[in-house]
Amino acid sequence: MRTSYAVGLDVGGTRIAAALVERKGRIVKESKTLTPKGGPFGVVDAIIDAVEEVSASVHPSEIAGIGIGLPAQIDFFRQTVEFCTNLPLAGVDMRSLVMSRVKHAVTIDNDGHTAALGESRFGAAKGAKDFVMVTLGTGVGGGVFLGGQLFRGHRGLAGELGHTLVEIDGLECPCGARGHLEAYVARPAIIREGRAAAETFKGAAIKRLAGDDLDRISAEIVIDAANSGDDEALRIMGEIGGILGQSLVGIVNMLNPQLIVVGGGIGESCPIVIERASAVISEHALAGRRDVRVVRADLGNDAGVVGAAALAFDENDSREGMHR
Amino acid sequence: MRTSYAVGLDVGGTRIAAALVERKGRIVKESKTLTPKGGPFGVVDAIIDAVEEVSASVHPSEIAGIGIGLPAQIDFFRQTVEFCTNLPLAGVDMRSLVMSRVKHAVTIDNDGHTAALGESRFGAAKGAKDFVMVTLGTGVGGGVFLGGQLFRGHRGLAGELGHTLVEIDGLECPCGARGHLEAYVARPAIIREGRAAAETFKGAAIKRLAGDDLDRISAEIVIDAANSGDDEALRIMGEIGGILGQSLVGIVNMLNPQLIVVGGGIGESCPIVIERASAVISEHALAGRRDVRVVRADLGNDAGVVGAAALAFDENDSREGMHR
Repeated sequence: MRTSYAVGLDVGGTRIAAALVERKGRIVKESKTLTPKGGPFGVVDAIIDAVEEVSASVHPSEIAGIGIGLPAQIDFFRQTVEFCTNLPLAGVDMRSLVMSRVKHAVTIDNDGHTAALGESRFGAAKGAKDFVMVTLGTGVGGGVFLGGQLFRGHRGLAGELGHTLVEIDGLECPCGARGHLEAYVARPAIIREGRAAAETFKGAAIKRLAGDDLDRISAEIVIDAANSGDDEALRIMGEIGGILGQSLVGIVNMLNPQLIVVGGGIGESCPIVIERASAVISEHALAGRRDVRVVRADLGNDAGVVGAAALAFDENDSREGMHR
Repeated sequence: MRTSYAVGLDVGGTRIAAALVERKGRIVKESKTLTPKGGPFGVVDAIIDAVEEVSASVHPSEIAGIGIGLPAQIDFFRQTVEFCTNLPLAGVDMRSLVMSRVKHAVTIDNDGHTAALGESRFGAAKGAKDFVMVTLGTGVGGGVFLGGQLFRGHRGLAGELGHTLVEIDGLECPCGARGHLEAYVARPAIIREGRAAAETFKGAAIKRLAGDDLDRISAEIVIDAANSGDDEALRIMGEIGGILGQSLVGIVNMLNPQLIVVGGGIGESCPIVIERASAVISEHALAGRRDVRVVRADLGNDAGVVGAAALAFDENDSREGMHR
């Protein structure tokens, strides 16, 4: 029987969101809860509660499965969490823990990957065979979608786009290396640049939006200033878009994708980032590859849960494909 | 009938090499000739002569096809030359020109791609499903081999590894952009660094090898000095290996390959480049991806013709697969 729904979960450092999602991507029921502090078992309890809450109204046989997006490095083939900064999940067999308490198939994946799957199935990348998803937020995430599916690599760990060189011996990156993209375009970089600007006359608008308190300057404040036309904030966000674009040129030259989707809180809220990145790619990608389109992600706030549901549908459909 | 041979051609800016190659990669007969100056027709004539010379001893039905590697951007799906620096072939339908004069199927590809196919079928990457080939020479070339085949991308232009950012607003690259890998690790960079060193006391050994004439310093001289233990030359080549490694970290994080094969005249002749690149990757790639092996290409001087023959075998076998 063809299942009609999947449950998608977006597990973040502060919040767990869950949704019952139809095959066409429409959200039927949603739930949000704070992420429990402490060990993994509290997180699993909260996941189970959320699944029960959103799926109570439909028969279990109508549900294709449960997809869970995590802010973690996932070994997709073994379905294990390799590394996780914000949650105590490293080395934890999340999938088995959840699966032992529900009647459905469970699949876990990195949240950049679920975002890519969501955009592919329901969003800005519908129909695209070869595209790259890049999410800008607290870090840089994403996924590489090649030949009609998410590319997994040798050990299921492919898809990290933020840990790529943009400057030899450059700024320190959270991963321990130097000069990686993430150190230049994610939330902490925007805050750093915003504060530096606010210490000078040019950053007056940014400072004012932060109530004259430099410690209150957030990425959102810098973006608000840019979106309302402040020159200095536009310069900061424009430079970030330029660096993103220069970095994406390398991916365009290597993978020749037809489309780049920019998502995440930062990527979606500041048009100049995408405009500038797109302009740099049009100018500097090698001949024949410049027709790549650079667009904003489509799923917005729902990207996490809808993407995780897409993961569950994909896994369900490939299992059924194999059994045919 | 299963064909036993393919003809592989390596067309370079100065030389055309051709070989009749067995299915297992052994070269049966070889020919080399200078690349004719002038337009594409002279090049085509020389290709036809070379094909006839190396294949004269076998029956046409035993030949799977002709593969041609070119130092050019190739739109693989349309089989056209998009861009070519060293030969007047841009926009030329090389494949049709050759095919109209021989009895065999003809396939053209970028020479970095044929190198990757050769290593995959006959060399250091035999059996590897996901690997990256990078060739260091006058430029940086290569190919990305994913899921058991060369990845082609949206328009058949995938595989350029040299035109990826290593330094924001950095050195000018032959492609017109700034700060790309090719500007830091290919032949001109080695010559530049070698000359700069030879102007100081530290570069005395390099200067001596060049007969005290700075204009005669070549990449080969710097590499000879490094391989014979000269500190300054080792520093230059070690730094190049370090930059290559830092750049490859990004590819390892994004594609999670099992293997990286380093080839090309520079890559194959200077062990410290591979050693240093490998050390940087082991240290700085993200968790779980550090088991990637970094090895020297295996096919050496034969890489061009044997790789082009691998291309012809692959195309032949996939055609036959489709007709089954």
